Amino acid sequence: MPTLLLDRNAVKNLMTMGDVIKAVEEAFRLCGEGKGRMPAKVYLSVEHGDFRAMPAALPGCAGVKWVNVHPENRSRGLPSVMAVLIYSDPETGYPLAIMDATEITAYRTGAAAGIASKYLARPDSHTMGVIGAGYQAYTQILAHAELFNPISISAFDVSQAALDALMRSFPQFQIKACSIQEALASDIVCTLTPSRNPIVKKEWISPGTHINAVGADAPGKQELDPAILKAAIVVVDDMKQASGSGEINVPIQKGIYSTGEIYGTLAEVVVGKKKGRANNRDITVFDSTGIAVEDMAVAKFLFEKAQQKGGYPSVDLMGT
Amino acid sequence: MPTLLLDRNAVKNLMTMGDVIKAVEEAFRLCGEGKGRMPAKVYLSVEHGDFRAMPAALPGCAGVKWVNVHPENRSRGLPSVMAVLIYSDPETGYPLAIMDATEITAYRTGAAAGIASKYLARPDSHTMGVIGAGYQAYTQILAHAELFNPISISAFDVSQAALDALMRSFPQFQIKACSIQEALASDIVCTLTPSRNPIVKKEWISPGTHINAVGADAPGKQELDPAILKAAIVVVDDMKQASGSGEINVPIQKGIYSTGEIYGTLAEVVVGKKKGRANNRDITVFDSTGIAVEDMAVAKFLFEKAQQKGGYPSVDLMGT
Repeated sequence: MPTLLLDRNAVKNLMTMGDVIKAVEEAFRLCGEGKGRMPAKVYLSVEHGDFRAMPAALPGCAGVKWVNVHPENRSRGLPSVMAVLIYSDPETGYPLAIMDATEITAYRTGAAAGIASKYLARPDSHTMGVIGAGYQAYTQILAHAELFNPISISAFDVSQAALDALMRSFPQFQIKACSIQEALASDIVCTLTPSRNPIVKKEWISPGTHINAVGADAPGKQELDPAILKAAIVVVDDMKQASGSGEINVPIQKGIYSTGEIYGTLAEVVVGKKKGRANNRDITVFDSTGIAVEDMAVAKFLFEKAQQKGGYPSVDLMGT
Repeated sequence: MPTLLLDRNAVKNLMTMGDVIKAVEEAFRLCGEGKGRMPAKVYLSVEHGDFRAMPAALPGCAGVKWVNVHPENRSRGLPSVMAVLIYSDPETGYPLAIMDATEITAYRTGAAAGIASKYLARPDSHTMGVIGAGYQAYTQILAHAELFNPISISAFDVSQAALDALMRSFPQFQIKACSIQEALASDIVCTLTPSRNPIVKKEWISPGTHINAVGADAPGKQELDPAILKAAIVVVDDMKQASGSGEINVPIQKGIYSTGEIYGTLAEVVVGKKKGRANNRDITVFDSTGIAVEDMAVAKFLFEKAQQKGGYPSVDLMGT
C-alpha cells in the first residue's frame, strides 16, 4: 500500500489561504463540539535546539507533526523551524502520507489568527496593524486579506529591510510602514515578534481593538503590557499551552494574571458556546500558541486534494 | 537536501540481530551515563485503536517513532502494529530519513531482552523457554541465539498452529513444543503473551531463573504471579513506563508491589551502577515495555549503513 509523499513545493501548490482558513475553522468547530483529540505536545531538548511531537486526531484523520526549533540554523543556510507530518488513517493506523509541514505551520498560524479576528474583531474592521515584519507577517496578511475586504495594512518593524521585503512581496496591498503607535491604532493588531518584554503599551490600544498575540510561543516570551490582558476579553487556542507558553505565560508566572481570567477558547467562540465581544468598545485578545488539530485539518485537506489530483510520488513504506 | 526513505524491505535487509543488539546495548550504556534523552511517550486514542509518539535523542541522533496499535487490523489483512520513524539531525533538526519502524520495533524488543539475559541470567544459561509463540517469539529467539550458544529452546502456546509456524521458521534450532511448566523450567524464560491474568505461577519457577516479561505493555496486562516479583530482582527498561504499563503495573495498582521494590534499570546494570544477580539462586525479572532510545539507536545504525551502501531512494521533502 502506498504512502503519499508531499514535499514543500507540492504542499505550497496544493493549498490556498482560503482552503486553509476553511479547514482550520472546521477544526475549531469540531473541537468545540468535543470531536477533536489532542494530547499535550511533548518537547525533546537537544544541544542546539528542540523538537516537539504534536499528535492530534479529528474525525477521519489522525497524525503527528514533528517540528524543530534551531535558532542557529540561519547561519547554516537552513530554516530555524522545519516540520514533517505523518498523516495516518485513524481506522487502521496506516501511514497514508508523509508531508512537509513547514508551510502548513505558517499557513495555519495565519489562518487561526484570521479566524479569531472574524469572530472577535468588530465586524466593520478594515484596518490591520502588523507588529513585526518577519516570517509570520506574510500569512497573517494573507489570512486577513481573505477575510476582511477591503483592508488597509500598516506595519512596524525595527528592521527597515524586513519592512521593505514585506512591502515588495505584497504590491497589491500598499502596506504602509509606520511607527508602532500608528500600527497599533488599527482595528485589528497582530503582534508577531520574539519579544521577551512587553512592547505594546496599554495607552496605545484604543477601545474596540482586536489583538492577535502570536509572537509568544515559549515560556518567558511576551509582547503585551499585562494591563491590556487585565482589561481585555482574552481568548486562547488551548488553555494549557497558552498558560504555559503563550502571551499570558509571563503574567501568570508573575501572579499578575490568572487562568481564571481567561474568557474561553476560540473553539468555544466558533461554536457559539461563548459569544466573544459584547460591544464595540471591548478590547479582545487572541492568544495563539499553535495547536496540532490545526495542522491535522490542513493535512487532511492536502491529502484529499492530492489524491483527487493524482500524480504525486509515493513509497510502499510498510511493505504491505 | 535529501531525506532518505527506508521501506520495510530495506530495513530488513540492512540489519542483522547482531547489529541491533550492539546498537541497543550501546543505547542502554549511553542512558546509564546520562547521555540519553527520552520524554514520556504520548498516547493518542482513536475509535479503533491508539497511536503513540515516542521521541528520543542519543548523542548524534534524534527522532520520533509514531506507532499504532489497532487490534482489529488482522481481519483487514493489515498488521495490528505499524510504525514510522522520523530520523532527524540533532544539530539542525533536519529530517535525514523516514523509515519503516515496524521491523525495528520487533528487533529492538528481542535485542533488549537478549541484553537483559546477558546481564541478568546465570552465565552458564543454555536453555530458553518461550511462553507465547506469536510475533514476539521470533526476535526473542534470534536475540538469545546470538548471545547464548549453544541454546536449547522449548516453547508453549495455546495455539498448535502458532507453535508449528514458529518451529518451521527455525529449523536450525530444534524448538521443542511442551507444556507451560516444562518451558518455565528453562534457565531463561521469555513471556510474550497478551495476558491480563497471571499465567506463570510462582511454584513453577526454579531458583536461578531469569525471566524477560515482555507481554505486558499496557495498563491491566500481566503475565507473572506477583509473588514472583516480590521474590525477584526486578529490573525495568524505564521506571515510569514499567510502573504504568509494564509487568509490574497491575500489582502496583493493587498495592501488592511498590516502585520502591524495583531493583533498578537495565541501563544502570549495563554501566555497572547496579550489579544484577548476586548468586546462582536469585530469580531475576526484566520488565520490558519498549523505549524510544532503543528505536533511535537502531535507526542511527540503519541510516549510517544505508548511507555507506548508497542507492536508496530519497525525497527533497523540505525543498531546501
